[in-house]
Amino acid sequence: MERIRAQIAFILEIDKLKSVFRRNYLSDGSRVENDAEHSWFFAMAALILQEHAVDSIDTHRVIEMALIHDIVEIDAGDTLIYDEEAKQDQAAREETAARRLFFLLPEDQASRYYGLWREFELQESPESRFARAIDRFAAIILNHSSRGKAWKEHGITAERIREINSRIAHGSPALWEEVRMLIDDAVARGFLKE
Amino acid sequence: MERIRAQIAFILEIDKLKSVFRRNYLSDGSRVENDAEHSWFFAMAALILQEHAVDSIDTHRVIEMALIHDIVEIDAGDTLIYDEEAKQDQAAREETAARRLFFLLPEDQASRYYGLWREFELQESPESRFARAIDRFAAIILNHSSRGKAWKEHGITAERIREINSRIAHGSPALWEEVRMLIDDAVARGFLKE
Repeated sequence: MERIRAQIAFILEIDKLKSVFRRNYLSDGSRVENDAEHSWFFAMAALILQEHAVDSIDTHRVIEMALIHDIVEIDAGDTLIYDEEAKQDQAAREETAARRLFFLLPEDQASRYYGLWREFELQESPESRFARAIDRFAAIILNHSSRGKAWKEHGITAERIREINSRIAHGSPALWEEVRMLIDDAVARGFLKE
Repeated sequence: MERIRAQIAFILEIDKLKSVFRRNYLSDGSRVENDAEHSWFFAMAALILQEHAVDSIDTHRVIEMALIHDIVEIDAGDTLIYDEEAKQDQAAREETAARRLFFLLPEDQASRYYGLWREFELQESPESRFARAIDRFAAIILNHSSRGKAWKEHGITAERIREINSRIAHGSPALWEEVRMLIDDAVARGFLKE
């Protein structure tokens, strides 16, 4: 009884992820994306693109990572990957958040999902590298589709995008190839500066 | 090459699910929920509450169902489960939508995810029954948490909620027990009419 109540309390708490906003826009540029719908989009992209992982992976672990990876942002907020200053204390803020949020769950589940979040952050397993590649890929296709709206707002150049996202190749060379073409296309069409 | 392009086209198409709105509100009552964030919330609830399924289930299949179950609403729109008139042609509208949307994918994936969507609709497998229970459960805890805001707007009574949602027990008697208590609590606190 206490167990199901703790689980429901956790589920209601993470409903707040729907109110944490990212910098990138939806594909039609109508509004920025929130973390909850991003997590769904990331999970769907991992499901559909799983065959492009460079290593043999357990897709279900990748999908679970996608579902839980941003929950820490309920407390720690969204940090722009191109913002070096905010990234300084990001790890510490997110660690504190992970300890509060996952530990609302019964102990066995708390450890399991805290561990899965840590695995994603550490980037040592094939699953975490593919997950990171998909996380980045999902943002890039939306930025491209919305004609670079968020890139323009934050003054991001093609060179910076290539530099920060080249690690996509560690999870999926095929997706990195797609990203390189999308960046070149954005430059050619004039909505991204070289 | 053609394969990855079809996959990316599908992923960009389903981004539209973020702009399909449901009737229920977020837990804080601030705004209504969209289908993409609902799909994430449903998948998370299935992950955390899996031990309460009445049958032995493959949780990963339930999670995949959660992720894809509402994609048809991009074309068919959201149908209120308490609206008997709209429910008349809902199956036909959703079938047409499923054939268009899933078949943007390469043939093998199209068949797979169309099949998974059909499995959810048919309610014959243990996974589909648990998934349906979680789908309903997720809406009820948000409605309860937002003090019955959507129930009031649509004139839904406690009796009607019990009638429509009693099938939660087919997937999870434990969750149905929780729902019965939430409904009684809502009536006792005056935000739901008996």
